[in-house]
Amino acid sequence: VALKSTGHKFVLPKGPFPLAEIAARVGAELHKPTNSDLLIKDIASLEAAALGDISLLTDAKHVDACRISKASAIITSPKLARLAAIESPMLLAADPRLAFAHAAYLFYPTPAVEPGVHASAQIDPDARVGQGSRIDAGAIIEQSAVLGMRCHIGRNSIIGANVILGDDCHIGSCTSISHAIIGARANIQCNTTIGGPGFGFVPSPNGALRVPQIGRVILGDDVDIGNNCSVDRGALGDTVIGSGSKIDNLVQIGHNVQLGRHCVLASMVGISGSVVVGDFVMMGGRVGIADHIKIGHGARLAAGSGVIQDIADGETVGGYPAVPVRQWHRQTLTLRQRIRGN
Amino acid sequence: VALKSTGHKFVLPKGPFPLAEIAARVGAELHKPTNSDLLIKDIASLEAAALGDISLLTDAKHVDACRISKASAIITSPKLARLAAIESPMLLAADPRLAFAHAAYLFYPTPAVEPGVHASAQIDPDARVGQGSRIDAGAIIEQSAVLGMRCHIGRNSIIGANVILGDDCHIGSCTSISHAIIGARANIQCNTTIGGPGFGFVPSPNGALRVPQIGRVILGDDVDIGNNCSVDRGALGDTVIGSGSKIDNLVQIGHNVQLGRHCVLASMVGISGSVVVGDFVMMGGRVGIADHIKIGHGARLAAGSGVIQDIADGETVGGYPAVPVRQWHRQTLTLRQRIRGN
Amino acid sequence: VALKSTGHKFVLPKGPFPLAEIAARVGAELHKPTNSDLLIKDIASLEAAALGDISLLTDAKHVDACRISKASAIITSPKLARLAAIESPMLLAADPRLAFAHAAYLFYPTPAVEPGVHASAQIDPDARVGQGSRIDAGAIIEQSAVLGMRCHIGRNSIIGANVILGDDCHIGSCTSISHAIIGARANIQCNTTIGGPGFGFVPSPNGALRVPQIGRVILGDDVDIGNNCSVDRGALGDTVIGSGSKIDNLVQIGHNVQLGRHCVLASMVGISGSVVVGDFVMMGGRVGIADHIKIGHGARLAAGSGVIQDIADGETVGGYPAVPVRQWHRQTLTLRQRIRGN
Repeated sequence: VALKSTGHKFVLPKGPFPLAEIAARVGAELHKPTNSDLLIKDIASLEAAALGDISLLTDAKHVDACRISKASAIITSPKLARLAAIESPMLLAADPRLAFAHAAYLFYPTPAVEPGVHASAQIDPDARVGQGSRIDAGAIIEQSAVLGMRCHIGRNSIIGANVILGDDCHIGSCTSISHAIIGARANIQCNTTIGGPGFGFVPSPNGALRVPQIGRVILGDDVDIGNNCSVDRGALGDTVIGSGSKIDNLVQIGHNVQLGRHCVLASMVGISGSVVVGDFVMMGGRVGIADHIKIGHGARLAAGSGVIQDIADGETVGGYPAVPVRQWHRQTLTLRQRIRGN
Repeated sequence: VALKSTGHKFVLPKGPFPLAEIAARVGAELHKPTNSDLLIKDIASLEAAALGDISLLTDAKHVDACRISKASAIITSPKLARLAAIESPMLLAADPRLAFAHAAYLFYPTPAVEPGVHASAQIDPDARVGQGSRIDAGAIIEQSAVLGMRCHIGRNSIIGANVILGDDCHIGSCTSISHAIIGARANIQCNTTIGGPGFGFVPSPNGALRVPQIGRVILGDDVDIGNNCSVDRGALGDTVIGSGSKIDNLVQIGHNVQLGRHCVLASMVGISGSVVVGDFVMMGGRVGIADHIKIGHGARLAAGSGVIQDIADGETVGGYPAVPVRQWHRQTLTLRQRIRGN
Repeated sequence: VALKSTGHKFVLPKGPFPLAEIAARVGAELHKPTNSDLLIKDIASLEAAALGDISLLTDAKHVDACRISKASAIITSPKLARLAAIESPMLLAADPRLAFAHAAYLFYPTPAVEPGVHASAQIDPDARVGQGSRIDAGAIIEQSAVLGMRCHIGRNSIIGANVILGDDCHIGSCTSISHAIIGARANIQCNTTIGGPGFGFVPSPNGALRVPQIGRVILGDDVDIGNNCSVDRGALGDTVIGSGSKIDNLVQIGHNVQLGRHCVLASMVGISGSVVVGDFVMMGGRVGIADHIKIGHGARLAAGSGVIQDIADGETVGGYPAVPVRQWHRQTLTLRQRIRGN
């Protein structure tokens, strides 16, 4: 792809910053004080780094890549620094990934919301939009919706009637939110649907009859939801996503799901109705959970797991039906051995 | 989440209604005639019910929850009423779930469509919009589209050229419909795509060449389709979804699929091209079906099934490759036993 | 569905064309020169064909369907023509599917883009839109975006700041594109998100912290992407989709994925971050690939595969964890036999 090499960038880095300033800002130590004035212009991976870039080393298996990298400085751990015998200037941090993320924010700070309402946006006179908010072209804010301060509603997105958004929420493009109460600092990306009616039907003489879905969606603070997701509102009660939880793209959250705090759900996870998930639960891609299941705090669900029984606190499971992950690995091995035995 | 407790509601219940009126309206019997004047204010689950609410008991295992519930009345079956020895006023119904759904509609009737065309909606002069319809902000109705009476087209949604919608159709927000003929009372939620070109390519000296997709999408009456779904139009013929079928969120229906009447498809189901599905088929979440497969009437496909062979009428299957469900359970058990045997 | 029989068509065929002209245009031979003037009015499947239609026979098992078909002419291979003893006029082609696709384009040519900018479209004064382009109602072209010639941006879609599109790109409705450089002749359907921030977080004392996602999405030429897909931009580097690759609906492409040229991805495929895929790779529906995996050139991944190890060039795999497809079939058989043995 010829365009790849054009160097066309969508965001330009701030800076440059002297290495000592970066160290101070990200909570790292300069390996050698003689490098304190070294000017760093950008961040990059070890492979792509050019002169003037700072890069990241987090694993001994990348030490060779680090040696041949053109990066002018490396963020790493004291232990890897000892192991690696690297000549490049280094910043040492107890948590190099976190330090690198902070460095990335130094060069690429989250831009402040530029307040304003686009001429083509529709804001109902009964809606309240907090100070410093930005409403993009084609966005629609319906009656009695309440937006906090510095909210950014993306192009062609919809904030339905009576919806409440906390401060500093960012909503992407073409996203539709209804029946929801959302905490501060939510990030909801594009083409996502929040607050649709759940999939609840009863058989009737005239075919399946949808049970009225009169509940809500409640999001805590600092919730991230990706692109093309669907989060249904509760049937009678609420669908709840706890503070700090992070949800990737193309995820389905059924009605009345109670997701805990600080959960991480990878892409294409599907959670059926009335599932209760504890705090700090991690789900790999395409995990599926049957309705009314309970998942304990800190459980880890391997990618592709299909969960049809409750999972205890702290357990790690895989497979379908999901079993403790060691048992799942043995199942896989067993199948291979039986075949060799044939 | 502090907001949970604010009691902020998105829909307020009608009523209150005397218990006797509820009984008459939902086709239930008053357990004790002395309760006929009891005023009921809302519906709720057993756990969340407050004084004045009516709730639902459908399973003996919830009798304890029922005893401690604050609900002022309970809808249940005559059999459970005998078993449960509950003191609360009760309504007895042969099908308590259906009676409760009717009660829910009594308190939360589907609002009538408020007719009108938003100033920012775009309706082609050659399109026809039936009496009593509502076209929301940013919606686009293209040339020669024909909408029935009392249709509601949501915000920023698109009804493509020549599309036909029956009476009383509800289309959510940011949904795009083209090349489709849709019966009465369709409910199609948000961010869904109906009528896209199917995934049909032939190899050619210049790479894969898309075969023109000249077919249509045909939906019967009373079809529900959830959020973020994709239903492709036929390649040469039609993609058909039979009357009364209900489809959850994030579902894929390939070109030329023939889905029968009164099917129920849970979230994330994927049906490949030219699959033929009978009537009254039920599919759990994330079922996948290979192209050109035939699924018989009344078949039931367990969540996560991967179907690569035809399924006979009335069969219940699970697993990948999908096999009769008992065989699937034995496979799972066998794997576990072999491991213990090791 | 009564409407099915109305014959309501969304596109009318060009023509009629004499059989000899079709032969010349699609690179086929007339089986009998006496049929050269036969007028063909439309294309259809064997089953649905009426008098005047041309149809396609590609498999000996459809010879009976061909004999009773009402099609006036058949495109097939010389070999099948010898086998089949069909009376209908025939066109013989080395690749009958490709010839039929060309015939389909003869009757249903891709309509030329009708240039114009809808009054409700928003084009930033700093954006550049190439000659002959069409910008539909509600579409938004942001600052410094650059569109090639004859591009068609669908209704309510968004081309973000600084995005570059090559010539002859078609973008569907309600699709959101940002941080992307896109080659010529891209087809991106509806409700799709290109360029969202990848799912990259590091744990921090305040909960998961998103790592700034400063990369891009690079699409080669002739890339097709279906409805309701999500393609994230790179974290530090780029997410790349090679020229000629075809992607179905509801597909997830994570950040920094490098997809080769002429790959074919069926619906609901999910590719995790930093996966590298070679050229001419085929993936069935709902394939999942773990992060950082490498897939060799020409590999074939059966529907539903879950890939957690690198796959060599030309290999065909299936199952989860994915293994060579023969081994997968043996695993399935073994499980069945063990059960019978019990």
